[in-house]
Amino acid sequence: MDSINRAVEGLLRSYDEVGGINHRSGANLPSTESVVRIVQDLETLAFPGYRREDGIDDSNVGYMSGEIAHRVAGSLVAEIERSLEYAARLDGGDGCPAACHLEARDLALAFLEELPGIRRVLMTDVAAAFAGDPAARSVEEVILSYPGLEAVTVHRFAHWFWNRKVPLIPRMMAEYVHRKTGIDIHPGAEIGERFFIDHGTGVVIGETCVIGAGVKIYQGVTLGALSVKKDACGQKRHPTIGDDVTIYSGATILGGDTVIGAGSIVGGNVWLTRSVPAGTRVYAPQGEPVIHRAGEPACADDA
Amino acid sequence: MDSINRAVEGLLRSYDEVGGINHRSGANLPSTESVVRIVQDLETLAFPGYRREDGIDDSNVGYMSGEIAHRVAGSLVAEIERSLEYAARLDGGDGCPAACHLEARDLALAFLEELPGIRRVLMTDVAAAFAGDPAARSVEEVILSYPGLEAVTVHRFAHWFWNRKVPLIPRMMAEYVHRKTGIDIHPGAEIGERFFIDHGTGVVIGETCVIGAGVKIYQGVTLGALSVKKDACGQKRHPTIGDDVTIYSGATILGGDTVIGAGSIVGGNVWLTRSVPAGTRVYAPQGEPVIHRAGEPACADDA
Amino acid sequence: MDSINRAVEGLLRSYDEVGGINHRSGANLPSTESVVRIVQDLETLAFPGYRREDGIDDSNVGYMSGEIAHRVAGSLVAEIERSLEYAARLDGGDGCPAACHLEARDLALAFLEELPGIRRVLMTDVAAAFAGDPAARSVEEVILSYPGLEAVTVHRFAHWFWNRKVPLIPRMMAEYVHRKTGIDIHPGAEIGERFFIDHGTGVVIGETCVIGAGVKIYQGVTLGALSVKKDACGQKRHPTIGDDVTIYSGATILGGDTVIGAGSIVGGNVWLTRSVPAGTRVYAPQGEPVIHRAGEPACADDA
Repeated sequence: MDSINRAVEGLLRSYDEVGGINHRSGANLPSTESVVRIVQDLETLAFPGYRREDGIDDSNVGYMSGEIAHRVAGSLVAEIERSLEYAARLDGGDGCPAACHLEARDLALAFLEELPGIRRVLMTDVAAAFAGDPAARSVEEVILSYPGLEAVTVHRFAHWFWNRKVPLIPRMMAEYVHRKTGIDIHPGAEIGERFFIDHGTGVVIGETCVIGAGVKIYQGVTLGALSVKKDACGQKRHPTIGDDVTIYSGATILGGDTVIGAGSIVGGNVWLTRSVPAGTRVYAPQGEPVIHRAGEPACADDA
Repeated sequence: MDSINRAVEGLLRSYDEVGGINHRSGANLPSTESVVRIVQDLETLAFPGYRREDGIDDSNVGYMSGEIAHRVAGSLVAEIERSLEYAARLDGGDGCPAACHLEARDLALAFLEELPGIRRVLMTDVAAAFAGDPAARSVEEVILSYPGLEAVTVHRFAHWFWNRKVPLIPRMMAEYVHRKTGIDIHPGAEIGERFFIDHGTGVVIGETCVIGAGVKIYQGVTLGALSVKKDACGQKRHPTIGDDVTIYSGATILGGDTVIGAGSIVGGNVWLTRSVPAGTRVYAPQGEPVIHRAGEPACADDA
Repeated sequence: MDSINRAVEGLLRSYDEVGGINHRSGANLPSTESVVRIVQDLETLAFPGYRREDGIDDSNVGYMSGEIAHRVAGSLVAEIERSLEYAARLDGGDGCPAACHLEARDLALAFLEELPGIRRVLMTDVAAAFAGDPAARSVEEVILSYPGLEAVTVHRFAHWFWNRKVPLIPRMMAEYVHRKTGIDIHPGAEIGERFFIDHGTGVVIGETCVIGAGVKIYQGVTLGALSVKKDACGQKRHPTIGDDVTIYSGATILGGDTVIGAGSIVGGNVWLTRSVPAGTRVYAPQGEPVIHRAGEPACADDA
């Protein structure tokens, strides 16, 4: 017991000495657990009846939506307020108790009023996934199980708050669904309607990407930056993808000036750092695989 | 308060106008939460004593297994019934209350009776993982911690239901473990005994793959389709992998007519869209990496 | 009911016949659920106030840390004891009730006393992530949301126990965070200060890697083995990475004799199986992508 208490004293000294503790004068950052619950509630409001066990029907859907909307409004106000106070302190001020609370309230309400508009776009994403995947048997299967749809759903929430300059929370939302799906979309990315990511694990979409409508992306695609210098912050570092472009698995497209013209097809494993006009098909210079038949000596190692 | 209620009214209108809500006449789809609990219970029945905190021993293992089996049977009947009713409505009917319930009961029972057979195959997967990974210190370590084993465990459950044409639930099971492990195996894939996926993140195995016995696959491998046209649904779009084939990380093998002969080795990053005979070793035409020593000018960008 | 009971009897026979059950004479392996809670508590002690909803401040931080430290100490003793007993039985003995309990207690305490030292190193990782990512707006954003930081945090816990030869638990910790982040770091890997993994999904770092200080790694990088023969267990099979090396997305570096000299840059998708001296820049021989403009016939398939 004494030794545990000694260890605790060492920890407390460490909080003082090297930081990494979040308790400046009792004001706290947004809570990861709370942001996760908010995202889950918003997913339920977006696609009611797809996650929970208890059935909903015409008689209780209004009650269910109302209950969740009130809960999520309260949590959103609290967490946005924390994030605004954090930003105010970061700018050197004392925080902004009164103004932050009002701004948080307005933002939470404005978001809830915007949800029907976001749902309309999400239904175009659902339709694109169903149309774009021969393995999809129904629209319900897409909503119930496609990780790509979940990633873009949460992205459309996070991007709304990003556009209103809410600190921290958009990125926390994005990383929640990144951990769940392996799809890493920075909340700053602008993404058009009818967006479909198939399989999705390993996809990375950078902060300043601009993606048109009807774009389709497979697992392992990176839309990234050529320069990762810290002072590039704020510049357009990530590519622009035109309408109806398809990008196959493992392709890498880099650079803020790189524009992929509408209707282009980028093949698997392509590495592309410059623009191509509309309607281009780009393939990796794969060359022929090197093949050794049984019995032939191999010249390369077995890995 | 009033503004939240206004937002809720907007949401309710949106459910009517663009859909995306699951409550046709009070009948509901299978519940994601319930399917997740079913999978977790089945994982416990497959490898008892490896997940939960409370010890099991000879005196309580029968009690524990019986309790979980009864719980999972009830949940399976309920969720299968929902999925069968959903499919019946999708075909234009009124649903099938009585017949669906009986069919769901038969399926749930038949699955539980099949579990010992599935366990026998799973123990060959455990042995293959232990034999195939020099970092594995014991069979227990494999069962406790290998994501590849968890993915193939859930796949063997999901594939059983897929073969019996149970709608939605097999894909929901597959996507549960895809989110957990980053390994995306479509429940339609046929996979032989002694299957080992090492590391696993980014692996994609398509719906119509046929994989022999003793196959070993590393992270980032795609066994995919050459065509993703919607009318290809139902055709064999994904490759056939012979017995005892090894496929190293990042390799991509595409096409329903592509057959990799038994005992072949496919090297890292290979891109292969045609068949190779038994015993073939295939390597990527990597070429030599381009190397600039310190002080030399570089001709390429730093990313 | 009867049929369920028959299925349970089949399961019980299967536990006897093919194994896969963990209950040797009532002694149990470490519990996955308990190890997960330990890791989450340790993450809270490492970065207090970043996960939970309830605010902490100067008046309650000591109480909070003390409560968690006592809880985690108790759980650590119990789980380490189970793992030591497991190893003792594996060596053919009867287990080691008394000695194992004392050793477990010493290890749990020694770890808690070491936590301030681990936190000091973690703060260098936080600083490296902030400095290395133009999208990072603040140190708080890094701690709250970066999966790469979470992976290295848990790795530094797991590696401590690995170095003390605690069985099973280090790998269970590593696989917990692998499932969460898609980043697979074997607990045996030695990793220096200021380590930053960006995006991270698909990263694999093998058991015998030695990584210097200030190293930066992107998504999809493999630091792996050339040989995966079982008798290679115990040998150095994975590469050595010098100080301040940067490795871009999708690069693969293999082999226990491969040494990447300090300050080198390894470009995206590079495949490297031999050493390079300090200050080298290595690029993949990407060749030019093959481009077909709109209207031109394509000579390759669209996938």
